Amino acid sequence: MEKKTLGIIGGVGPLATMFVGEMIVRLTDAEKDQDHVDMIITNNPNIPDRTAFILGESAEDPVPVIVADAQRLGAAGADILAIPCNTAHSFLGQIQEGTDLPVINMIGETAARAAADGAKRIGVLATTGTISTGIYQAACEQHGMTPIVPDAHIQSVIMSLIYDDVKAGKPADREKWTIIQAAMDEAGCDKVILGCTELSVVRQELGLGEQCIDSLLVLAETAIERCGHTVKK
Amino acid sequence: MEKKTLGIIGGVGPLATMFVGEMIVRLTDAEKDQDHVDMIITNNPNIPDRTAFILGESAEDPVPVIVADAQRLGAAGADILAIPCNTAHSFLGQIQEGTDLPVINMIGETAARAAADGAKRIGVLATTGTISTGIYQAACEQHGMTPIVPDAHIQSVIMSLIYDDVKAGKPADREKWTIIQAAMDEAGCDKVILGCTELSVVRQELGLGEQCIDSLLVLAETAIERCGHTVKK
Repeated sequence: MEKKTLGIIGGVGPLATMFVGEMIVRLTDAEKDQDHVDMIITNNPNIPDRTAFILGESAEDPVPVIVADAQRLGAAGADILAIPCNTAHSFLGQIQEGTDLPVINMIGETAARAAADGAKRIGVLATTGTISTGIYQAACEQHGMTPIVPDAHIQSVIMSLIYDDVKAGKPADREKWTIIQAAMDEAGCDKVILGCTELSVVRQELGLGEQCIDSLLVLAETAIERCGHTVKK
Repeated sequence: MEKKTLGIIGGVGPLATMFVGEMIVRLTDAEKDQDHVDMIITNNPNIPDRTAFILGESAEDPVPVIVADAQRLGAAGADILAIPCNTAHSFLGQIQEGTDLPVINMIGETAARAAADGAKRIGVLATTGTISTGIYQAACEQHGMTPIVPDAHIQSVIMSLIYDDVKAGKPADREKWTIIQAAMDEAGCDKVILGCTELSVVRQELGLGEQCIDSLLVLAETAIERCGHTVKK
């Protein structure tokens, strides 16, 4: 299969950007430097907060900045684009309209993976912005699953884990995760989607198990395959 | 201070590229996504092997590909460039000639850091390729230090730690490090330079202390400062 160059629209957030890059390197079936996926990664701190815009707390629209980065990556040689930010996928239609390059749909790929793994009642852990747009819930329903959204209290614990811990450069607080996990178990979820890239950092830091479908991991594996490489067994 | 965009010429190797990107994110004094360093990173698998070219085992010159990436990063908006590969710094003069953008000199910065930390007799731990070019030894002498290069036996232990452990995806062998450390102590070194990105991995895995000057860490910190940001305390 023809090899393609991957463009990653990063900075959303910065740590998740480096994490997905590292995942792609570690998961590519490669024996030497020259076997790896050709990538160009932007880590643009000037992309406005996605959740704040969705919730109407900010008038700064992130879409034009994301589209500009998509065009910049295209000009630099990218053939296919990935955005390691679930919340930004709320604007996927607009972003896709702004570029001729195909953009990987992390939400759709993650829901498909959860369904393929046999999930029926699927917990959706994401930012309040992502939850409010309903994109994960819709994708899960399309794949025949029942999406379970946390109540307001649990949602605030998730937001604290994302913003007060990971985005602030602090270690993930295991106690917060335990509270979230217990609520999802009680709601009868057989799997939970980690639908925020910062939660992927939490998964790795706390060593969370296979009950968690990590959207960032799904994105990494999808990107490797779409670029004509093979995921390491 | 005016903020600058960092271009990282990566892929040499791919894991070190993501590693230095992560270091920059983790070490930047930032409280939210928007406080981070603006970066563009290439991870180009088509850069020919640096060591093989230096040792005359390959006729494929990596310089034109590195220069093309430098130009691609400049066109995409980079103001300053970094190359997370000690060996590639053997060609720094040629690379700098091929671009108008300043390229951070990881070797020079690392030697300067060692001198600032009070080193007089400085051990140089690097691949046999890097050692053979003499770039670290020259930089250390320029900063008034006496560089100490390991003897052939110790050099083979260093190469084993780099190739048989880290590059092979295995944990770093503490026993090998103990042998290296003892030889450097016996040679009267007050500090040692970790002049290979794999040795940066060893430092983190084994929790090596402040006697070690980690070239990748120095590159990350230098890049943060040169881009107008502050290194986290």
